[in-house]
Amino acid sequence: MTDHDLQSLPEWTKLAGEAGRMKLAENHLKNLIRQGNRLKAFSLAGAGLFYDFSRQRLDRESVNALVRLAKAREIKARFERMMSGDHVNTTENRAALHTATRSFSDDPVMDGNADIMPAIRAIRDEIRKFSGEFHDGKIAGHDRKPFTDIVVIGIGGSYLGTEFVATALSHLADKGVRLHFLSNVDIDNFGAIAARVPAETTLWVVISKSYTTAETTANTVLALEFLKENGLDPKHHVVTVTSQGSPGDDPKNPVLKTFYMFDYIGGRYSVTSAVGGVPLSLYLGYDRFAEFLKGAEEMDIHARTAPEETNIPLMAALISVWNNNFLGYPALGLIPYASALAKLSAHVQQLSMESNGKSVTCDGKPVKIDCGTIIFGEPGTNAQHSFFQLAHQGRPFPIEFIGVLNPACDEYSIKSKGVTNHQELFANLMAQSQALATGKDDTNPAKFFSGNRPSSTLLLQDLSPKNIGRLLAFYEAKTVFEAFIWGINPFDQFGVELGKVMAGDIRREMAEKNKNPDYLFDNRDPIRKFYLEALFGGMDRR
Amino acid sequence: MTDHDLQSLPEWTKLAGEAGRMKLAENHLKNLIRQGNRLKAFSLAGAGLFYDFSRQRLDRESVNALVRLAKAREIKARFERMMSGDHVNTTENRAALHTATRSFSDDPVMDGNADIMPAIRAIRDEIRKFSGEFHDGKIAGHDRKPFTDIVVIGIGGSYLGTEFVATALSHLADKGVRLHFLSNVDIDNFGAIAARVPAETTLWVVISKSYTTAETTANTVLALEFLKENGLDPKHHVVTVTSQGSPGDDPKNPVLKTFYMFDYIGGRYSVTSAVGGVPLSLYLGYDRFAEFLKGAEEMDIHARTAPEETNIPLMAALISVWNNNFLGYPALGLIPYASALAKLSAHVQQLSMESNGKSVTCDGKPVKIDCGTIIFGEPGTNAQHSFFQLAHQGRPFPIEFIGVLNPACDEYSIKSKGVTNHQELFANLMAQSQALATGKDDTNPAKFFSGNRPSSTLLLQDLSPKNIGRLLAFYEAKTVFEAFIWGINPFDQFGVELGKVMAGDIRREMAEKNKNPDYLFDNRDPIRKFYLEALFGGMDRR
Repeated sequence: MTDHDLQSLPEWTKLAGEAGRMKLAENHLKNLIRQGNRLKAFSLAGAGLFYDFSRQRLDRESVNALVRLAKAREIKARFERMMSGDHVNTTENRAALHTATRSFSDDPVMDGNADIMPAIRAIRDEIRKFSGEFHDGKIAGHDRKPFTDIVVIGIGGSYLGTEFVATALSHLADKGVRLHFLSNVDIDNFGAIAARVPAETTLWVVISKSYTTAETTANTVLALEFLKENGLDPKHHVVTVTSQGSPGDDPKNPVLKTFYMFDYIGGRYSVTSAVGGVPLSLYLGYDRFAEFLKGAEEMDIHARTAPEETNIPLMAALISVWNNNFLGYPALGLIPYASALAKLSAHVQQLSMESNGKSVTCDGKPVKIDCGTIIFGEPGTNAQHSFFQLAHQGRPFPIEFIGVLNPACDEYSIKSKGVTNHQELFANLMAQSQALATGKDDTNPAKFFSGNRPSSTLLLQDLSPKNIGRLLAFYEAKTVFEAFIWGINPFDQFGVELGKVMAGDIRREMAEKNKNPDYLFDNRDPIRKFYLEALFGGMDRR
Repeated sequence: MTDHDLQSLPEWTKLAGEAGRMKLAENHLKNLIRQGNRLKAFSLAGAGLFYDFSRQRLDRESVNALVRLAKAREIKARFERMMSGDHVNTTENRAALHTATRSFSDDPVMDGNADIMPAIRAIRDEIRKFSGEFHDGKIAGHDRKPFTDIVVIGIGGSYLGTEFVATALSHLADKGVRLHFLSNVDIDNFGAIAARVPAETTLWVVISKSYTTAETTANTVLALEFLKENGLDPKHHVVTVTSQGSPGDDPKNPVLKTFYMFDYIGGRYSVTSAVGGVPLSLYLGYDRFAEFLKGAEEMDIHARTAPEETNIPLMAALISVWNNNFLGYPALGLIPYASALAKLSAHVQQLSMESNGKSVTCDGKPVKIDCGTIIFGEPGTNAQHSFFQLAHQGRPFPIEFIGVLNPACDEYSIKSKGVTNHQELFANLMAQSQALATGKDDTNPAKFFSGNRPSSTLLLQDLSPKNIGRLLAFYEAKTVFEAFIWGINPFDQFGVELGKVMAGDIRREMAEKNKNPDYLFDNRDPIRKFYLEALFGGMDRR
């Protein structure tokens, strides 16, 4: 089997036929969900999660056909190879061993001839020790005052996952530390942070694998200037998370502590490494970070060992392929009914769209099908009052709902319309998936709902660190399973390079103008020239 | 002309042919933008904005054909009727007069036989007076202490637009007042706010046209309980923005002040009414709110009077139809290169998807084309480090870039790589649209960029209240112009009703269980039964 021959597989052709069948009126979701055993037959429980796909447009035969595709593409074997250290990131000849960062097993994990587990365990120990001393006050700010604020400087994969987890677990943030993120290069962001944090008790955590990311460099330069203005030393106020030997690991520029990142962990898969570990342990305590890791490990084991038929992330990936390639839905709404999960969609948006927005298969041929899904979302019920009009009566898109049985915060005993706030929230979660599936006839055409709009629902018991770890690893596994079906490499991101190169050209012209105000933009490209002149001279220069 | 016959118009058929022509290799964007006068020929300046559509996949002939479609659909005449008070919201037999809320003209605006302008001017005066007394300390909290915090309770259209404007103008928030939004019914949200605000100096602003929105009611009940617990009186701590005679305008439950909303202004178009006016004037001062209104008015006048060929929101709407219906793009990325505009995409997501996610034309026939675009976005450069991989090498989607020439915050003089942070940001904005359009050949297939990916760029001189008003009104006008082409009603939202009805059924079952713990869920729908049992008994109940 080769990666690019997906469409010639009999299992693929079979699915096209299945999709045709599911488009028949008799297979409208309102009919499918009327079957008494529908939920039991189309839901899975495992690794602490409950995954309900009873409101997806499929039946037993379509699921069986999807599972046969998974087997034909050997996606479980690929997952096993990924976890075992094979260089599955072929274009960069690297392993993809994010799963090792949350392994608590004694087994070795080999990258080439080297067991990487000792280094991973050592870094975990360093994080435990450092965060312990931070919370004990042994590591402290100016005049030995305890640190009150942490600013994480990082962008993309050095930021989004950590922000998701920190927001989800903020109800456990009892260490007296405020956490801030500085990602964008926009000067307004630095200005807002600098105005807000007390310089003497703020720790800056700079996260960048290469330590050359333009945005992170620019913000770090400003942070160092800010420290200098306040008479403070980076040796006491800056921590770096970076590759060994990078400019962030330079003895000539000493910092309080440097934690290492490894080339076998990609940014968007790095939350369970030191990238997430350092800020999350400082914010929540190491023990909670460790619980979070254990939840992720549990999901990894499930993804690795559960058979195709009962494997939750694998089934979710198959449904994604089904909706993308056979039912023709280009997008997915990710709607958690929990404000604590407000940053989940931004994280999964990166994880999925950066991993699977590819145009080339692993064997170097053009991808011939649509791959990569547009992911977007807001928490419910907010989303209902925003874009759900389109979900119900406009261009349809599948939705992944996420429900949490217990709220993170104590409920007020007071009720509105006989229910608590959390119950009101949950009632809406239940109602939306049903309304989308069944629709409603009406003689008034403006009040007619066609229904047959698919959704899944993922249930968590509560917002514990373990459940957030499970949820994180679920989306990671789902994403790589999708890629393994499509035959693409979910671990590289060459698509971001061209813009960087062009920005570099433009930056050089701007720097020239900064040095020499008489410099004239005589770029051969009149569009570029116009924008440069507008930036330096205003819009009326046109 | 009727609304549903769009596809039989010769202007529509002509555009299908145009699209075929634009798909030829010779019309790849890298070729189109090489023409020396490309920018001049495919950009517009007006109402303080610069709109560059030179990187859209069109040429003079396609633009001419689009303009002919606009004329055939008489969309300028429809806009005129909207602004003149015709009941363009046909399903609800209402006018749509959001433009009147920012009119400073002396001309009357008639809804039926009544000039609505006196009432609009009276409310503006009330807002000016109230916010003036609030800032002077004449209106104050407990023990006459000045108010320090405002909590806006509202959801959807009572929230998203105001949040966008408040965030965009937060650099001008010099009144010593913190602004919080409480929208979702999630108990965690109320808990977080209650823990953060000082009860005695907090003013609660409850915004709901009907004053029966479930989420707003539930949060208001908790806010009133919070006041009671703190020995405070709603007469001094609660303001309502609601319809005359609603439960929020009830003399039996006196509040500090009630501002009226009118039925001719829909939620998602209400930012320039008291809905945005009250919180924004308290947060920023009335004068800035008035400047914001003047910017919106300027854009309204431009949209009403500029010919089709030079009308910015009209051209943007035509390009949206072109990309949706002729080039087959289902989604739009909205990417402002300004963190202050971080909430723009959430606002436009609601405005556009709720307005135009419709399945029925104004004359009651099913819509036969895809209408309504999936809108999503994050600020640049964050978006580059998140989902731009897919934009460059995966499933293509058009992008609307927004650039701001002057940053809101003073720049540090210190530079990184020879440029300031703001210049770095702007260099990236310039680079992305170019990279998407041109692409890049490469012998390594993983580094090949197909290009030909369309984008527009909207430029603002700065983040002044006036420019934010212009931007807001641009998106409102663009949205209704799209609807007028598609022949749908952008002012109703019946699609949100079915879920509300079903949530009501479920709520009643929950309330029953709250009253009687022995109550058994014996719902005929086993899916609903499972979820209710899980909520009350845990996941293992399955």
